[in-house]
Amino acid sequence: MQRNLTVAQAQDTILQAVFRLPPETVESASALGRVLAEDVRSTRILPPADCSAMDGYALRVADCAQASEGAPARLQVAFEVAAGGEAEVALEAGQAARIFTGAPVPPGADAVIMQEHVEAEAGGEAILVARPVEAGDHIRLAGEDLAHGDAVLAEGDLVRPTVAGLLASLGRTVVSVVRRPRVAILSSGDELVEPDAPIDGGRIVSSNSYTLAAMCREVGAEPYYLGIARDRPEDLEAHVRAALVADCIVTSAGVSVGDHDHVKDVFAKLGCEFVFWGVQLKPGHPMLFGRFPNGPAPGSPGPFLFGLPGNPVSAAVTFEQFVRPALRKMSGHSRVFRPTVSARLRTPLSKRPGRLNLVRVSLSVEDGEVWATSTGNQSSGVFRSMSDAQGLLVFPGPQSELEAGAEVTVQIIDDSFFAGGERGFEGV
Amino acid sequence: MQRNLTVAQAQDTILQAVFRLPPETVESASALGRVLAEDVRSTRILPPADCSAMDGYALRVADCAQASEGAPARLQVAFEVAAGGEAEVALEAGQAARIFTGAPVPPGADAVIMQEHVEAEAGGEAILVARPVEAGDHIRLAGEDLAHGDAVLAEGDLVRPTVAGLLASLGRTVVSVVRRPRVAILSSGDELVEPDAPIDGGRIVSSNSYTLAAMCREVGAEPYYLGIARDRPEDLEAHVRAALVADCIVTSAGVSVGDHDHVKDVFAKLGCEFVFWGVQLKPGHPMLFGRFPNGPAPGSPGPFLFGLPGNPVSAAVTFEQFVRPALRKMSGHSRVFRPTVSARLRTPLSKRPGRLNLVRVSLSVEDGEVWATSTGNQSSGVFRSMSDAQGLLVFPGPQSELEAGAEVTVQIIDDSFFAGGERGFEGV
Repeated sequence: MQRNLTVAQAQDTILQAVFRLPPETVESASALGRVLAEDVRSTRILPPADCSAMDGYALRVADCAQASEGAPARLQVAFEVAAGGEAEVALEAGQAARIFTGAPVPPGADAVIMQEHVEAEAGGEAILVARPVEAGDHIRLAGEDLAHGDAVLAEGDLVRPTVAGLLASLGRTVVSVVRRPRVAILSSGDELVEPDAPIDGGRIVSSNSYTLAAMCREVGAEPYYLGIARDRPEDLEAHVRAALVADCIVTSAGVSVGDHDHVKDVFAKLGCEFVFWGVQLKPGHPMLFGRFPNGPAPGSPGPFLFGLPGNPVSAAVTFEQFVRPALRKMSGHSRVFRPTVSARLRTPLSKRPGRLNLVRVSLSVEDGEVWATSTGNQSSGVFRSMSDAQGLLVFPGPQSELEAGAEVTVQIIDDSFFAGGERGFEGV
Repeated sequence: MQRNLTVAQAQDTILQAVFRLPPETVESASALGRVLAEDVRSTRILPPADCSAMDGYALRVADCAQASEGAPARLQVAFEVAAGGEAEVALEAGQAARIFTGAPVPPGADAVIMQEHVEAEAGGEAILVARPVEAGDHIRLAGEDLAHGDAVLAEGDLVRPTVAGLLASLGRTVVSVVRRPRVAILSSGDELVEPDAPIDGGRIVSSNSYTLAAMCREVGAEPYYLGIARDRPEDLEAHVRAALVADCIVTSAGVSVGDHDHVKDVFAKLGCEFVFWGVQLKPGHPMLFGRFPNGPAPGSPGPFLFGLPGNPVSAAVTFEQFVRPALRKMSGHSRVFRPTVSARLRTPLSKRPGRLNLVRVSLSVEDGEVWATSTGNQSSGVFRSMSDAQGLLVFPGPQSELEAGAEVTVQIIDDSFFAGGERGFEGV
């Protein structure tokens, strides 16, 4: 087992270990946010026939070649083609056909004129066209959008709303996507109670499990919470066994060096290989990463273990740095990290040189510049410094002082930071 | 009814009309992504008592005042306090107590020393402390995190994962949040079929409904799809009546000026007041916004109507510009717009001066600069130009040329654009 890795080493080790999960086939309407596990080719032609892009009249360009305001062409409206209708009758010289958006263009017609650009005679039996028309005007050609066999979507593409619509238009009601990671959430400790229990003595709520489950959901994984294991080897073992069918186990059981931490022993007994313990990070040093080479199914590996610190701030910060990128990779995403932005520091910060610090900050934008302000008491016991934070400011290990106004890097942990309070453009 | 508004006028009109929905009470674990409709104050003290921040030993500072490497203080380990345990017995002079993270500090003790910093005698009956200790070391004071009555969360706050954890720690298993908008999705047309139907003649898939439903889900609204109404007033009316219990009706029924568009007539008959028709936008001009002053419940208003163009690209673009900000406001968000970024244009663009164009673009980042490239054929019939797009480039109405390299504004419609392909900082 390695010890005391840098954040970079720890992330690299984890991302080399985890792998994209196998595919599953789901209904396309449920695939939103998932990553495609197949290339999708068109088995259709869209539009299926030359069709009108407007409500208007299909006509023959030759009939209007000399048309002008003074001498409009008069065309007999021979028939009508509705959207979804058939276009079997051919248009003859001097004729037009009433046509609607999406309707197939009848044989013989080579352009469509918008209804706003003609004068219809009373009764609608004829129209007057006072301008020449160009061949192809307002006609969408068969296959213009999609030809048969066109590569439409590729393995690895994210299913965004427009992709869901495209799949529907291809008649693909089911699609192969990368499976979502199933994450077993485990907490342990005799002091822990669920949120609906009374608080007395030294009891505290097992709130980490609720934070971590919500973090899993936010990244598109499927958490299942196994409840609180008590500090007895038998109870811990029963809980861990129930977690072995997961893709990942995330525990904030406190894998430190205390006498009462039976957790590591139980994991080892059940076949976990510990890859590293300890990261040069504050908050979040006592973190464990491991893997079960053998899962409950013969021949297939078991889950990865993320043993996060028991402290709520540390658990949340280490989830962000180590579990989230792993879950994104397992889900098939190629861009697995949170975004970072350059910002300026509002008030000075200092620390001992050594471990990298991630300082919880709120953010504001002034004249296009992002300003970062510490969310206050950075004691890892103060969870509101985390729940108030939009970003984690990177205070590199070797540095000890950051002056007010210093240019810093901030990792954005609140996607709503990017949402626009304003339109962002003039809108005319 | 107003006509031909600018994009800015149309957005302003819509955002002035729509309002934040009333609250509902939901289980906190289901509140992720919702907006709080109440201020949350602490009814608890966290931590509930002075407690240890480390695994180690609680002691009396006075006992170690003279301690040094050469002359360590020897303290008798009198008892043990586990996390979740009680701390009823007082520590006397010359005594220490074995203590674990989160355990209450016993009366008489005024500091905790980490177990790594002491030497335990064989049998664990005494420890040697070879350094002075400061009062308060490694003790988290009662109420340090939260005092009774502290304002913890405010109405309007977004429920992020850490907020879910904070609610759990407060014992708040249910919480009041702004209701999600229910959006009735309606399509109409004799040419439309569902995705599982065979395609023949001029039939096309009702793919807009699937795109629009997915867009609703992405923004946190609850879509329900009413299926395809046929182009007969009775069928349309039955469908629209079923939509009147919604907060919004989104239709891509094609509310143009064609003879076959019974849609507007049916909405008017059922009490819809049309606010504006037509926006100076390409793609997306023929868009209708209206409201039902009276809903099916006496005394309360009915839904807002967004009549989007039937063309799939136009429907998606107008949803982004007009429906999405409205749904965000209704959901309680204060920042309702998509983010915009400055970018440089890869290849030149031209258009006639007049309407604002939103050009579908893919994006790449080179040396910190964002480059925008048209996704190809910008005919509004070509849906892949939309499903491939990460952004919409703003080509202002008055302009007719944008040269390669020009600085442009791009609205980001794919949140994954912000995800980091790299760590974004050194990680040490």
